[in-house]
Amino acid sequence: MAPATSARQTRTYAASGVDFSKRAEALAALLRAARYRAPPSHGRPRDAPGHFAGIVRAGRETLALTTDTVGTKVLLAERLGRWEEVGEDAVAINVNDLAAVGARPVGIVDTILCGRPDARTFRALGRGLARGLRAARCSLLGGETAVVREIVRGIDLGATALGIFPRGRAPVLGARIRPGDRVVGVPSSGFHANGYTLVRRILEEAEVDLRRPRPGTRVSVGAELLYPTRTYSGIADTLADLPGVHGFAHMTGGGVRNLARLSDRARFVLDAWPPPPPLFGWLRDLGGISEREMYETFNMGIGFSLVVAESAIGAVRHRLARAGAPDAREIGRVEAGTGVTIPPLGLRYAGYAG
Amino acid sequence: MAPATSARQTRTYAASGVDFSKRAEALAALLRAARYRAPPSHGRPRDAPGHFAGIVRAGRETLALTTDTVGTKVLLAERLGRWEEVGEDAVAINVNDLAAVGARPVGIVDTILCGRPDARTFRALGRGLARGLRAARCSLLGGETAVVREIVRGIDLGATALGIFPRGRAPVLGARIRPGDRVVGVPSSGFHANGYTLVRRILEEAEVDLRRPRPGTRVSVGAELLYPTRTYSGIADTLADLPGVHGFAHMTGGGVRNLARLSDRARFVLDAWPPPPPLFGWLRDLGGISEREMYETFNMGIGFSLVVAESAIGAVRHRLARAGAPDAREIGRVEAGTGVTIPPLGLRYAGYAG
Repeated sequence: MAPATSARQTRTYAASGVDFSKRAEALAALLRAARYRAPPSHGRPRDAPGHFAGIVRAGRETLALTTDTVGTKVLLAERLGRWEEVGEDAVAINVNDLAAVGARPVGIVDTILCGRPDARTFRALGRGLARGLRAARCSLLGGETAVVREIVRGIDLGATALGIFPRGRAPVLGARIRPGDRVVGVPSSGFHANGYTLVRRILEEAEVDLRRPRPGTRVSVGAELLYPTRTYSGIADTLADLPGVHGFAHMTGGGVRNLARLSDRARFVLDAWPPPPPLFGWLRDLGGISEREMYETFNMGIGFSLVVAESAIGAVRHRLARAGAPDAREIGRVEAGTGVTIPPLGLRYAGYAG
Repeated sequence: MAPATSARQTRTYAASGVDFSKRAEALAALLRAARYRAPPSHGRPRDAPGHFAGIVRAGRETLALTTDTVGTKVLLAERLGRWEEVGEDAVAINVNDLAAVGARPVGIVDTILCGRPDARTFRALGRGLARGLRAARCSLLGGETAVVREIVRGIDLGATALGIFPRGRAPVLGARIRPGDRVVGVPSSGFHANGYTLVRRILEEAEVDLRRPRPGTRVSVGAELLYPTRTYSGIADTLADLPGVHGFAHMTGGGVRNLARLSDRARFVLDAWPPPPPLFGWLRDLGGISEREMYETFNMGIGFSLVVAESAIGAVRHRLARAGAPDAREIGRVEAGTGVTIPPLGLRYAGYAG
């Protein structure tokens, strides 16, 4: 994790309990050891560098598979006794990773690990899953519920999403991104399911009452923080076939740096990033977090980005409005180079990891 | 869970910390609430009653998706500091659920939840995943590593497997099973990854030294218990297209009752079940477990079963030998009725849940 630009002492995400370098090192060791390539009759994987979804050609179709958990947001759900929101998150975070490669979701399996299964909690989780499935237009194909009280405290919640590239559609991986392209952002619905280890640490230290609203709002802080992840898979499905649509980014853990994952021959200049919703500034001030760390940890109001040819901007806007995203707006442009910059804030990120 | 047949007090699996009725109740609540059926353009799910893999028609192919975790076997891995075996389990338990519907694996994603990522542990997990992938001839398409030390103690390990039904192959779901069919069993490689909550309780209470061998053996009890799950997906893939092959059962949690999941119009009479490997009898005696509970909890030496027409027995044996299972043998037959019986032991199970 890069050091904060600000001179004053800032809380780093590592200090809040997540050390990404250790994780990266361990993961690299696992991936080196796990290398095996199956014969073509058993699927032909396709490299999708910079993407979370894996892509495989199987039979006559190209498929995408991705898995993710809700992470420590479940601890907030537990504290508030509200499980529907994270149920919806479990679907949304996965179909959004499918969306980032242009795949259409065709099935979900969920995984719940728990100490004690409770019908009321599970019913709320189920309602949340249903909301997520409806938003993604995708069926629940199965799942696993494991009672493992010696391993899990409370509940861990994750899912895996299967997607397909409809006939004639190639995966949208970012290879066609070039200088002059525009970056269009679709707003988020809050923190989605990222950065909650840091969020919770800040709330605890500041002794925030989650049942009360922030100044100037009516909804409780708890409800604001739990708000489920917006689903972008319909948007990507509508836009993936449009000529001039060069890349999609799910703005998940890593914040704006998720754009850098799309290309190592492009610099994403985010010179028109809209002011983040007040919730983000409130948390920044409460925790004394630098702007740099805010933008590299949270989605800062934009949950999904599209990189499109300048000539396609009109058609993209039109389709976005029809696909349920009339709130999308241009947030930047592509230059030659690498990394991500936010000129109005003087921020520059070398890449996804730096 | 059915009561033990033996009059003396026997340990039940519920008493060891897994209450299946609570889990079933919670799961039913979740599934009722999560019901949503996507439009056909977003996949057409196909019912696969009694199977763990979900099946969906997407584009021009029929796909299967299944997810499972290694469960509390990871606690044994942790205690022994050996992670390669459970890495292999994570792949095997999932591709075996694909095998049970006759699907060929084409991709895996893994999920590791941990408190502290450690490169050495992850390398061993990766080596184990590679062994599982090689056995299943299947590629790792991606995965998720979550550092969630407030949720998970140690490591939780799971995976999701994607399978395809090669052109011309219909899912093998058990609908053609009829009286007169034969049941063929393929040996297991130990406890696989089921029943470890009970296994560990017994070992702890009996203060068994895991580094020492059982009487009459040379390998340590720990190594015997960790031995990875045998992979059956190649067997199922080789046999699924053969006329007369009516059903497959992965003998996982639920023991012999897994056969009952295949049909509610057949009774599986297991009158030729081979003597289980000595490890099973040793554990039974150590824990004072009834035979009834042993056969409804563990695989008792048979990890995968095939239900085949009598006329196909010769061809099936021939193909099994070529597919790496010359140790398969006939273990029973199908009669009219329901449930599973083991006449030599006087055992009768009404169904998967009873």
